[in-house]
Amino acid sequence: MPADTYSAYIAIDWGTTNRRIYSMTRGGAVIETVRDDRGVLAMRPEDYPAEIARIRERFGDRPVIAAGMVGSTRGWQEAAYVPAPADLATLARAATRIGGQDVTIVPGVSLLTDVRADVMRGEEVQVLGAIAAGLAPADGLFAQPGTHNKWVRTEGGRITDFTTTMTGELFALVKGHGILAGMLDGPVTDGTAFRDGLSRCSGACDLTAALFGVRASVLLGRIAAQDAGAYASGLLIGNDIGAVPDMDGTTVHLLSGGLLAELYTVGIEARGGRVVSLDSHAGFLAGLHAIREYLS
Amino acid sequence: MPADTYSAYIAIDWGTTNRRIYSMTRGGAVIETVRDDRGVLAMRPEDYPAEIARIRERFGDRPVIAAGMVGSTRGWQEAAYVPAPADLATLARAATRIGGQDVTIVPGVSLLTDVRADVMRGEEVQVLGAIAAGLAPADGLFAQPGTHNKWVRTEGGRITDFTTTMTGELFALVKGHGILAGMLDGPVTDGTAFRDGLSRCSGACDLTAALFGVRASVLLGRIAAQDAGAYASGLLIGNDIGAVPDMDGTTVHLLSGGLLAELYTVGIEARGGRVVSLDSHAGFLAGLHAIREYLS
Repeated sequence: MPADTYSAYIAIDWGTTNRRIYSMTRGGAVIETVRDDRGVLAMRPEDYPAEIARIRERFGDRPVIAAGMVGSTRGWQEAAYVPAPADLATLARAATRIGGQDVTIVPGVSLLTDVRADVMRGEEVQVLGAIAAGLAPADGLFAQPGTHNKWVRTEGGRITDFTTTMTGELFALVKGHGILAGMLDGPVTDGTAFRDGLSRCSGACDLTAALFGVRASVLLGRIAAQDAGAYASGLLIGNDIGAVPDMDGTTVHLLSGGLLAELYTVGIEARGGRVVSLDSHAGFLAGLHAIREYLS
Repeated sequence: MPADTYSAYIAIDWGTTNRRIYSMTRGGAVIETVRDDRGVLAMRPEDYPAEIARIRERFGDRPVIAAGMVGSTRGWQEAAYVPAPADLATLARAATRIGGQDVTIVPGVSLLTDVRADVMRGEEVQVLGAIAAGLAPADGLFAQPGTHNKWVRTEGGRITDFTTTMTGELFALVKGHGILAGMLDGPVTDGTAFRDGLSRCSGACDLTAALFGVRASVLLGRIAAQDAGAYASGLLIGNDIGAVPDMDGTTVHLLSGGLLAELYTVGIEARGGRVVSLDSHAGFLAGLHAIREYLS
């Protein structure tokens, strides 16, 4: 087996705007973590070798394994998507080794059917790693709320289907631009306004009409101005959850923390689903560690 | 009867960003039209009297009747919404007369139910005017595509229900900002890509997922990069039309011209609807003229 299989290593979750570097023991335990804003958008392709050298100065001259947008066409070097269904062994087989650097980049997963296309990079490691670590069953439904929320279905430890929704991005767009700009700056928390929005969009919902209705609801005094942000958040999250069929009685494994996890939990439970909260970092690290073992 | 009932007059469609001024005969025929960008956003409330004076310098010292955002809280003087159901007589009764100016501002229409709120300003005059002019039946379904598309239902010549969808605004937002920015700049025309988008979203459609799918479809080669704008337009228009129940066999009175009218016609016919195209300016002017008659 290669020497690096049993060495300590460096794991990187290298996303679009942020990056999380983990110094790992050879057994897969975290020694130290650093999070910064040196995401893919802050880098040019030619910057990466020097960046890796800086990381090794700090954490030691160890093998690096990275996942996320670093492997996209906008990143360092493309690690082409593997089509679903995919498991950790599939990801390991398709991993890209950067010559002379001892850096491995994990590919993303793609989905292509007659009617739709979807892609993910980084989230697949969290989901499959959570399963590998025994945090979630091999057959499950996962949600990863954020700018681009992923709903992921697994069967037998393989990602068989997934859908990306632009829920977080749309909230940011309508909050920052257009006719709702300046109206959604109030606090977004769980409460009456959020639940009103959830229930408005939990079933069949014409989201583009419901969003215009935020303005009309304030103009006509249906909701208070300071509640408009929470109401709009409820509409968008309600619509997101509402698009998942058969939620009643379903368990959703939620790879998220903080406020978003809280709001999605309220929305999922309102539709009769159950939530199991998972640590997305633990999932990510378990996934990368398993991929390293497959590579040995 | 007041002297101005039988005088020539000035009709103004005074919107958010644009304004259309019509010099009218006393019988309601157009003498001259001027369109400019002196919309509500370009004006302060104190600018209006001088603006009206300038308009009268050009078109004569005549009564003015105006509709649109000029009557909103962001305009000159608020003409409070009248609740649906509303007809032209309702609008006339609630019109705001600006003291000493011989200017009449027509109110908008509001809708408030247990679950939703909506408002319109200006579009109600087009719809009810089209009916008054015999261009459309008293019981009908109207669409007014644009930044904020209105779907309006009338019964017995009254607006009984309506829905505003942010279809055009959302297209502009995702085209200009966020992950799709720069991907949707190709030509938007009727063609294979537009119809592919239409059909993707013509039934139950999770719009926020379908929009992310634009990027994935380009990345995976499902659609060509230059077709992404037309495809995204098809998604949004398909979703907009898809939210209208019972479209099959329904006649839609389309108050729109140019490319948008063409694209909506394709989408409505794809769902089994029929389209009657109406001249929105003719509807607007017939509506204002009828309101003048009610005011006499």
